[in-house]
Amino acid sequence: MTSVLIIGGGGMIGQKLASSYTESETVSLLDMAFPENINSNAKKILGSVTDTSMVETALSDLPNTIFYLASVVSGEAEANFSKGWDVNIHAFWSFLSQIRDQNLKSEGQYKPIIIFTSSIAVFGSPFPNKISDDFLTAPRTSYGAQKACCELMLNDFIRKGFCEGLAIRLPTICVRPGKPNLAASSFFSGIIREPLNGLKANLPVSTDVRHWHASPRSAVGFLRHAENLCWSDITFNSALNMPGLSCTVEEQIEALRSIAGNQVVKLIEQNPDEKIIEIVKGWPRNFETKIALDLGFSAESSFGDIIKIYIEDDLQSNVIN
Amino acid sequence: MTSVLIIGGGGMIGQKLASSYTESETVSLLDMAFPENINSNAKKILGSVTDTSMVETALSDLPNTIFYLASVVSGEAEANFSKGWDVNIHAFWSFLSQIRDQNLKSEGQYKPIIIFTSSIAVFGSPFPNKISDDFLTAPRTSYGAQKACCELMLNDFIRKGFCEGLAIRLPTICVRPGKPNLAASSFFSGIIREPLNGLKANLPVSTDVRHWHASPRSAVGFLRHAENLCWSDITFNSALNMPGLSCTVEEQIEALRSIAGNQVVKLIEQNPDEKIIEIVKGWPRNFETKIALDLGFSAESSFGDIIKIYIEDDLQSNVIN
Repeated sequence: MTSVLIIGGGGMIGQKLASSYTESETVSLLDMAFPENINSNAKKILGSVTDTSMVETALSDLPNTIFYLASVVSGEAEANFSKGWDVNIHAFWSFLSQIRDQNLKSEGQYKPIIIFTSSIAVFGSPFPNKISDDFLTAPRTSYGAQKACCELMLNDFIRKGFCEGLAIRLPTICVRPGKPNLAASSFFSGIIREPLNGLKANLPVSTDVRHWHASPRSAVGFLRHAENLCWSDITFNSALNMPGLSCTVEEQIEALRSIAGNQVVKLIEQNPDEKIIEIVKGWPRNFETKIALDLGFSAESSFGDIIKIYIEDDLQSNVIN
Repeated sequence: MTSVLIIGGGGMIGQKLASSYTESETVSLLDMAFPENINSNAKKILGSVTDTSMVETALSDLPNTIFYLASVVSGEAEANFSKGWDVNIHAFWSFLSQIRDQNLKSEGQYKPIIIFTSSIAVFGSPFPNKISDDFLTAPRTSYGAQKACCELMLNDFIRKGFCEGLAIRLPTICVRPGKPNLAASSFFSGIIREPLNGLKANLPVSTDVRHWHASPRSAVGFLRHAENLCWSDITFNSALNMPGLSCTVEEQIEALRSIAGNQVVKLIEQNPDEKIIEIVKGWPRNFETKIALDLGFSAESSFGDIIKIYIEDDLQSNVIN
């Protein structure tokens, strides 16, 4: 029987991932907080990944599959250096050590699948037009460095046979439901989500900015597909760029216009913000993800599809004309 | 006044590096053991890098330059998983944290130069004919993964302004003085050193094997040159492939023949060892090191020069005809 542990299960992707399992499957979630309306029969374990005993509790029923989504986000890791390294790598190391202990204690019988969410932040400029599967990981942020270290650690634990697994490097997830946040990337979702909810949205960069997107539904799809890979097919290092859609802000806006009309698009206001413009310049714009596509991972092929998924999965109100 | 700390100062390179400073310069060495005949006026601190208080002692007089050479070697890191990760990355992290504490305590006044010895083991096959400066780090050993993590950590500490520095990826150091060791690469030195000392040497691979070498004298040169770089010139990520010499075993042997004669070469015996053949297949063979050369790093251009350096710097007896 499938038993699944989602570390970071209280977050947006964690909740959607939990909901993707049937009631007959055993799903546990570990996180510091859970939203009140969390829609899941999952067992909820309240605690931090930095608390070894909480991780031990979460692992006590030896889950077959573990999704490790917990992370201090990019902006916070940059602002709070110690917290970023503590949560993003030292806690992950301690988690992997517990997996290894269980593997050795069971004489190799316990060998779970670990799917770790890495990020395209492991890459640093200068970039080619399309980033290939063997592009150098040279991060320019603490968050990117931490994710790259975790990839190296996971890869070594897999190589030594303590677990199976994969680190998947997610595109920017768009359209994120809920409220805008302080992430520099927040506007990529905001310029779609806010207008569809009848609210004004701020666009801090020019419309020719190109970026790499996938929907929350695709993110859950990546995680579920990764869980069911045939591990002997994986001959590359265990970190993989996920498919996505490369498009410009202008293409995002035109997709919104064709789905929701001119009046909705008029809610987007252009207010250039030099700080955000500078940050966004250092971000990857496009990828070729040959290995992932060959392994059967897939994402949206038009931004219109990404908007429709937001409307189907998350839009609560009914503002479309 | 220059004050220098060499962490791992009891090793072969550490000793040669210590001897490269004049008596008027303050040099401290931290290591678990020091050879009895160590030729240096340096202050010796006996202790492990895994002992936080010993590292604190070593840092107490705030050295301007710190060379971090301490490491569990490749074979041992592969055989003893926990020890490799503990010594090779957790101790390095703890060391960097102490540097950051001192930097913050001094309000940025204390900002030492940290030169870390990484390795070409950060690279994994498949390789191009020549590995470029922006080739992917995809290690296939625990040692390589640990070195790659340390590079990412050091880079982030440098980016945040807690220190200056560089990780330098050393070629295989050849000819190593002293006795053969259990490293799979030991024969690259052994087939030169043993015959020059009148002893039989074992060659476990075929003579067309190509590898990447630099002398111990070059290694010390890299470290001293790195110490004096102009940090504002460094715009790449802070890990850099060092120059070296790519040559085949046959070229090594022919260089030995032209320097020491046929009788000496006859002491080399070919005994193919499948295990070593397999390991060596996964090793880098050649590099272009454009950035390092542009920054003024240099190494030998012929294997004859590498042999002559061994004879000048290390050969004790006098067996050359």
